[in-house]
Amino acid sequence: MTDAKRLTLAHGSGGEPMQQLLHQHIQPLFDNAILARQEDQARLNMTLAPGERLAFTTDSFVVTPLCFPGGNIGTLAANGTLNDLVVGGARPHYLSCALIIEEGLPLETLQALLADLAREVRAAGALVVTGDTKVVPRGAADGLFINTSGIGVIPAAVDLGTHRLKAGCRLLVSGPVGDHGAAILACRRELALGGDLISDCASLWPLVKGMLEEPGLLAMRDATRGGVNAVLHEFAAAAGLSVELEEAAIPVRPAVRGLCELLGLDPLQLACEGRLLAAVEADAAERMLERMHAHPLGSGAQLIGRLVPQRNSAVIVRGLYGVERSLPAVSGELLPRIC
Amino acid sequence: MTDAKRLTLAHGSGGEPMQQLLHQHIQPLFDNAILARQEDQARLNMTLAPGERLAFTTDSFVVTPLCFPGGNIGTLAANGTLNDLVVGGARPHYLSCALIIEEGLPLETLQALLADLAREVRAAGALVVTGDTKVVPRGAADGLFINTSGIGVIPAAVDLGTHRLKAGCRLLVSGPVGDHGAAILACRRELALGGDLISDCASLWPLVKGMLEEPGLLAMRDATRGGVNAVLHEFAAAAGLSVELEEAAIPVRPAVRGLCELLGLDPLQLACEGRLLAAVEADAAERMLERMHAHPLGSGAQLIGRLVPQRNSAVIVRGLYGVERSLPAVSGELLPRIC
Repeated sequence: MTDAKRLTLAHGSGGEPMQQLLHQHIQPLFDNAILARQEDQARLNMTLAPGERLAFTTDSFVVTPLCFPGGNIGTLAANGTLNDLVVGGARPHYLSCALIIEEGLPLETLQALLADLAREVRAAGALVVTGDTKVVPRGAADGLFINTSGIGVIPAAVDLGTHRLKAGCRLLVSGPVGDHGAAILACRRELALGGDLISDCASLWPLVKGMLEEPGLLAMRDATRGGVNAVLHEFAAAAGLSVELEEAAIPVRPAVRGLCELLGLDPLQLACEGRLLAAVEADAAERMLERMHAHPLGSGAQLIGRLVPQRNSAVIVRGLYGVERSLPAVSGELLPRIC
Repeated sequence: MTDAKRLTLAHGSGGEPMQQLLHQHIQPLFDNAILARQEDQARLNMTLAPGERLAFTTDSFVVTPLCFPGGNIGTLAANGTLNDLVVGGARPHYLSCALIIEEGLPLETLQALLADLAREVRAAGALVVTGDTKVVPRGAADGLFINTSGIGVIPAAVDLGTHRLKAGCRLLVSGPVGDHGAAILACRRELALGGDLISDCASLWPLVKGMLEEPGLLAMRDATRGGVNAVLHEFAAAAGLSVELEEAAIPVRPAVRGLCELLGLDPLQLACEGRLLAAVEADAAERMLERMHAHPLGSGAQLIGRLVPQRNSAVIVRGLYGVERSLPAVSGELLPRIC
């Protein structure tokens, strides 16, 4: 490193300073033989049994601030892409990691964030096998953006997706909603109630691995940007059905509810980063819920509603005394750079 | 679209405006059934024959300006990632496309760039099957950044890489060097000689498909950031050998040479975006060169040097009258945001 403390444009040049950065500071964090080969592409010795399919996904992460209670852009970039594989029923195998760094970022910051990213990927049994490093001049980006793409394998017996949704199936959420969005909000506005607001950022693989062994699973989504509300509207639109929710069943932490009341927000519209919504056959819903409760990541799981033949609203919430209200799709921007 | 002309933060919100942008303006450009399913992950029905391996690569593109003579960030994001697959001997199959958009980007600009990206990917016989869209507030990014990741298949008979390099093998370049770097430079500085400076941005797949049928191919790299010089230093370092180049054999267009003389640059250090460097068994080099000449993308190919037992410099250029000079690795930043 020509400058031991901060990243410079030379670290993105393709020349010697970049090679040094990669060899000395980045590759060791991911420590695997495929990445260490340093070719322009990772070569993967995979075998696919008959009926197995590859899952392939990508996400860019632009969250601000880079670190927040419960996580950082590194844990988010790992778990966000792992979860996009997992909710399709895929076991995660390989991730890429592409960095866009604003000149001046402290090397120590980058290393700490990538160490966290590497740890989360390893914990899910996957490897970071290829990457890219760009450094842009001050002001051309904001600190650090990370793109991760992922490859997983969907077992032959698994077929999840909105094409399997049908009237009567039940909707389960794996835990309290809105934690990530609330944590970012409190953190940015420096609200005093920040102490209890912690992002739920986590890999869902350990939970989903068990759920895939249960019968009756039809579709899953992780409730990120747009929160549970966005997933419900996507389910309703894709299936040509409506969603009926029981308001009392929706798990929301007191601190998140407090923040929402203070700011006039709906917890269903706040992003989660470690929660999934599952659609399950009606007669399998109770057993699935038990299975979810058996894992720490699903200990707060709840049966929150069902899909019904199309009504005049896509998503309907039944509150106290059976009073119904319709939950509109989000049309504005609630909170930019949440993930 | 709430605002018909420019992208807003709402288009990255995960809610309805984003769904509209994707359905009406982006998905149709890529027009394929896998992407149209709109799940969080693409599901790919691939079969791998015994000995076939997956190739997996990623690149983020931050080039400025977004459009330049000979290409734009869209053609670059397609061909850059296609080429990173291709130089490993892989036939490209699937690409992801993740956008980081600065609020205010004209929708028309985005569509035109993505249409070009889609066209280049299709021309290589590949599909864009998954994506991501983030919009960041004005000033948090510069216009548009694109990440593409790619999946290809390496045939069982193909084994390319720096592990196969050895003393005596020959080095071939597929055409004139430095065109992309020179085009970007001239474009940014508004130099009058810009007319003849055109990026070589192109997919190398049609050329490489034929080269893979010839015997003796050992390793390939596309000469992007850092130019041919960076590839030569990587080859030398990986193999523990030195490179000897014949200066007179290195193809450089007159306009590129003129620009380099004007600015005191070395064409070997300027980026290419449609040129590859190949290491080939000595006795197979002439036939490989003929094969390259047979394709328009390789019509300017030249045998430029060889690998030799380690000398006191990694890369040595023999000029007129046999005078040798050593070509150092690049340590500073020649030209930020070249790709």
